[in-house]
Amino acid sequence: MNIAIVGLGLIGGSIGLRLKLKAESLKLKVIGIPRRDETIEQAKERGAIDEGSLNISSVSDSDIVFICTPINLIIPKLKEIIPHLKKGAIVTDVGSSKSEIVKEAQILMPKGTYFVGGHPMAGKEKVKLEAAEADLFQGAAWILTQTSKTSKKALETLQNLISDMGADVLVLDPKLHDLTVAGISHMPLALAVALVNTVSEAKEGKDEMLKCASSGFRDTTRVASGDPELGVDIFVTNKKAVLSQIKAFKSSLSNLEKVIKEGNSEQISALMKKAKEVRDSIYGQS
Amino acid sequence: MNIAIVGLGLIGGSIGLRLKLKAESLKLKVIGIPRRDETIEQAKERGAIDEGSLNISSVSDSDIVFICTPINLIIPKLKEIIPHLKKGAIVTDVGSSKSEIVKEAQILMPKGTYFVGGHPMAGKEKVKLEAAEADLFQGAAWILTQTSKTSKKALETLQNLISDMGADVLVLDPKLHDLTVAGISHMPLALAVALVNTVSEAKEGKDEMLKCASSGFRDTTRVASGDPELGVDIFVTNKKAVLSQIKAFKSSLSNLEKVIKEGNSEQISALMKKAKEVRDSIYGQS
Repeated sequence: MNIAIVGLGLIGGSIGLRLKLKAESLKLKVIGIPRRDETIEQAKERGAIDEGSLNISSVSDSDIVFICTPINLIIPKLKEIIPHLKKGAIVTDVGSSKSEIVKEAQILMPKGTYFVGGHPMAGKEKVKLEAAEADLFQGAAWILTQTSKTSKKALETLQNLISDMGADVLVLDPKLHDLTVAGISHMPLALAVALVNTVSEAKEGKDEMLKCASSGFRDTTRVASGDPELGVDIFVTNKKAVLSQIKAFKSSLSNLEKVIKEGNSEQISALMKKAKEVRDSIYGQS
Repeated sequence: MNIAIVGLGLIGGSIGLRLKLKAESLKLKVIGIPRRDETIEQAKERGAIDEGSLNISSVSDSDIVFICTPINLIIPKLKEIIPHLKKGAIVTDVGSSKSEIVKEAQILMPKGTYFVGGHPMAGKEKVKLEAAEADLFQGAAWILTQTSKTSKKALETLQNLISDMGADVLVLDPKLHDLTVAGISHMPLALAVALVNTVSEAKEGKDEMLKCASSGFRDTTRVASGDPELGVDIFVTNKKAVLSQIKAFKSSLSNLEKVIKEGNSEQISALMKKAKEVRDSIYGQS
């Protein structure tokens, strides 16, 4: 099976590294199509690809194409790819919002080729190839989208390949995907950014806060140190779901605020216990 | 110099472990006064204390007394301690809010004895002696409070001892302390609790969110897995400063919400960049 990876950053590079571990047993050939020549050399040296090309027409032999560009380039790149696809080819992406992309891609795909939206739920602050690792997806959720137009066979092929990469595949409707990631991935970013900015705009105590910030603040705001442009992409492309989650969060915070204002120890305790219980059910007791 | 530690949990135990490293060079004797007999044995085995007692009158030889109980027991414990203090004795505490405690303690302390409020900015989710470690305060901020009634000599004695423990001492007015910790320690907790509860109350997508939650959600909500009762103490005793910080945070979040709603990439980018810059200035580039 021939695989093309368009874009060799953290995610594209990690897909390559992982697939190459299995290349022999799965009879895979991995071709990388990055933007820059030096990335081809680097990816070969790291063992993330078999071959590299700067020419998008190099997807013409591929059975599966992973588009791993920044989210705002996914549809433009798909348009470039389409004329070169062979019959039966499957295209997937790794963008962190799905409704818009899947809708547009389904309209664009020619008969006999297939698009399945994807989103591996793994990441780091660093987004370049140097940060790529074969284990990035191990045990992580990898969402694939399904609509009434999705080919079951294409979905199944991708499910198998991605499971082979160590990820837990979850098949979701694009809208439910967007709501899900808004709740657990985009909201942490929104809160981290808003919290850091609250401190930096504090009229009193700003210097003391910056000086005393310790592990709690560090961990709660970690995602605010990521690539700002990735944040812009997220909040622009997943606007609707993010806004609905901000609304829900505000109501939850107001609930806590109310019981603090009342000095209601019992209710504060109940909210704390509920949160601890739910969180421990996800990550185990810390 | 004789040191008493009243309460041998994470903080009291870690103070003991650290002081005992310096016990010879500083000529210290460390006595531990926990609630339970078995804690004395355990603390001795770990090398956190020289001697232990369950009797509060054992503070009578001490030059410095650290009160390391849960915050709601600090003043009750101080009342028990006072009748046994020798002349010139200094009492400090490690409670995470200071205005109320310092105000009450200053009224209670008899002439010739001194109270200086304290708050080491170090912690973990686990709060028992087993989690104690000599390095807990290394490089961490340790706030001591100063008011018009604070003895300069007592403050200086504590500053020296705590610097010897590896912490960076910061002297603040109790109210400024409370505002500072509300902003960088109590707010992360409030947001973590509110975010987990938002997910667990989601009308749509709850199961998918719980299944897909990955490292961003994990780190942002880490502090929600701490001891719920510690959270109650914080929100009850530092109510005023926490409420003012929740208000400021809501305004910061609404600001982000507004530019997301407008789809204003430039303004979203500006808020993201500002947050990243401030955070990286604290913790270095991640």
